[in-house]
Amino acid sequence: MNAATPGPILVIDAEQSVARRLNDWLRADGFEVVVADGADSGFAVARDIRPALVLGELGLTLASGSQLLRSLLHELPDTSVIVVTETASLDEAVTALQEGASDFLIKSLLNEDILRVSVQRAMERRNLRLENRHYREMLEQTNERLQHSLQLLEHDQRAGRQVQNRLLPPTPHESNGLTLCHFTLPSLYLSGDFVDYFSLGPGRTAFYLADVSGHGASSAFVTVFLKALTNRIRRQFEKRTKVSTLSPGRMLQTMNDELRELGTGKHLAVFFGVIDTNADVLNYAIAAHYPPPMLYQDGEVTQLPGQGLPLGLFPEARFDEHQVSLSRRFSLLALSDGILEVLPAGELAAKEAVLRAEAAAAGGELDVLVERLGLQEVRDVPDDIALLMIKRDE
Amino acid sequence: MNAATPGPILVIDAEQSVARRLNDWLRADGFEVVVADGADSGFAVARDIRPALVLGELGLTLASGSQLLRSLLHELPDTSVIVVTETASLDEAVTALQEGASDFLIKSLLNEDILRVSVQRAMERRNLRLENRHYREMLEQTNERLQHSLQLLEHDQRAGRQVQNRLLPPTPHESNGLTLCHFTLPSLYLSGDFVDYFSLGPGRTAFYLADVSGHGASSAFVTVFLKALTNRIRRQFEKRTKVSTLSPGRMLQTMNDELRELGTGKHLAVFFGVIDTNADVLNYAIAAHYPPPMLYQDGEVTQLPGQGLPLGLFPEARFDEHQVSLSRRFSLLALSDGILEVLPAGELAAKEAVLRAEAAAAGGELDVLVERLGLQEVRDVPDDIALLMIKRDE
Repeated sequence: MNAATPGPILVIDAEQSVARRLNDWLRADGFEVVVADGADSGFAVARDIRPALVLGELGLTLASGSQLLRSLLHELPDTSVIVVTETASLDEAVTALQEGASDFLIKSLLNEDILRVSVQRAMERRNLRLENRHYREMLEQTNERLQHSLQLLEHDQRAGRQVQNRLLPPTPHESNGLTLCHFTLPSLYLSGDFVDYFSLGPGRTAFYLADVSGHGASSAFVTVFLKALTNRIRRQFEKRTKVSTLSPGRMLQTMNDELRELGTGKHLAVFFGVIDTNADVLNYAIAAHYPPPMLYQDGEVTQLPGQGLPLGLFPEARFDEHQVSLSRRFSLLALSDGILEVLPAGELAAKEAVLRAEAAAAGGELDVLVERLGLQEVRDVPDDIALLMIKRDE
Repeated sequence: MNAATPGPILVIDAEQSVARRLNDWLRADGFEVVVADGADSGFAVARDIRPALVLGELGLTLASGSQLLRSLLHELPDTSVIVVTETASLDEAVTALQEGASDFLIKSLLNEDILRVSVQRAMERRNLRLENRHYREMLEQTNERLQHSLQLLEHDQRAGRQVQNRLLPPTPHESNGLTLCHFTLPSLYLSGDFVDYFSLGPGRTAFYLADVSGHGASSAFVTVFLKALTNRIRRQFEKRTKVSTLSPGRMLQTMNDELRELGTGKHLAVFFGVIDTNADVLNYAIAAHYPPPMLYQDGEVTQLPGQGLPLGLFPEARFDEHQVSLSRRFSLLALSDGILEVLPAGELAAKEAVLRAEAAAAGGELDVLVERLGLQEVRDVPDDIALLMIKRDE
């Protein structure tokens, strides 16, 4: 199949002297030659030895000859053909070349040099054709292989996504008169953004939105750790008989310590809050969470102040706690910073203004907000996106 | 680019009457026709309008003519050429067809029917060529796209694998005079097998090997949960001042409860043990772990008895504890069931026998065992593989 050893040449000629002459010339040039004494027997031999080149009298003046040539080229696409004839017939030449012969030579004009040039050109064309076909086959095989690998990984990631979805809380969820909803949109399949909320007993509901550095599988791992940690906290509260509360600042401290101990090399931004529905107070702490959470009540949107170090980096990090009074009707919205990538380009201040306006316009309805931000249609987001909405309507 | 609207046909002929006749015939067949009155000007027009077909006198008897044809076909690979000449020259016909013209017609013999057949055939060949090229381009583009998606996912999974590797304990690790080692080989990038070990204080070392159902990202998630859980247990022991011990049976119970609460839909097999190096006793419990762990001491390999339900499925599962006396020198080997897939085909009993023999032959050296089992060379394992080896040499 390569140029150096192209395979044998089949010479077809009824005249022994012509066949011998062609044979001698070709052997002198280093080719392996097989001789057949007629078109029909030649075709049988060709099928058998699959020559690189068939050279000879194919009787193209007869209808059967051009049919033979067509069959030969169809059955043996890797074989080139040079037609050699007695007579200089234009019709015959046009037919032969149109059928795919690579040259048309007249016996009486044939000499060693003419043959050499013609054979060389036929071999070159054949190599080009072979390379072309091999390239296409290689492409097809590569395609299949890539498709297979991709399916394997996609299947794997989808299975991972399913498990991750099971770790997310129900949406919507009712707790102590609050309605809590979330929406997550992973950049790939697995999300480094995570949301959870749970009751700490009568009158107290905890929630958080976390954004692990990076995205995809490695970041998603850390969300499992978060879930395991907060499950444990929730269990502790479920077991308690006396009313007690959870400190958001200390919660972030615990997350920081245990994340550092886990040693994933990942850090994360978290907005953690506890709503006391008896005292109508939101108590929260922030670890590098951006954009600021927004509280919509009494016809106004307020960005909740507060900042703090990201979790997982600094051993002695401490986190300030903040209190906000809540009206009877309010909605609280937190978003991971992935949202900034899908807002119209502009300064951060402008994007924050857009979010404030959207928070007011959505009026506590997460579905409406998702629709207004076009998040159902958006594809290939560069970063994970998570939204958490908490509202009280009464 | 399709057969229905192949684009214009460029007719080149210096004789106005011939050009008009060709023009009329072709228009009657519904083709758009552009006429040029010579080869040179025709070529300029062809470059401009990129016709589907050039039909005409190209002056091939001159050297410049065949050069022109070659340039034309090279520059406009989507254009077919039918040569129309005054004279029936065999040389000219062979040259034209070899250069890639699709037909060679003699003016004096030309009529409407002959032209129609020739044009039709030229268009068919052109379509085949175009389809061929489009197919190849499509393959190339698909390849590129697949490659890109695959790289994205592979990169993601590799990043996940890195994080997972960080969750594994150091190997080898010394604890209370024991040497603990592990080896993991994921089926894909992320492993559902997991190993950990840690000191519970002076004279007590805990360890486990876990195999989450399935493999890949979804199973790997559960290993993060396991790590978070056992980190917590370890912390509790680090804080204690009085000597206390950990019950392997209760440990499995806790894992079962918390895994069920996590709700991943995954279940797992675990071999959990605590070695008391003062009393020389191994205390362990088994949850659906297979093949049985093997203890090699005093020149003999013993399969450790015990069975139990898998974790994550049954709400009230309880797990028996087993005790084994340890010699001063011993090695303990646990393997996940992925190992069975790379052993020579056979009954399970035969595979267990192979493992017992290998455990003895390795003599407590994990590297030797990995080498003997050929795990460094094995590719595309159908299931994750994990090995845990604990030995005392003194």
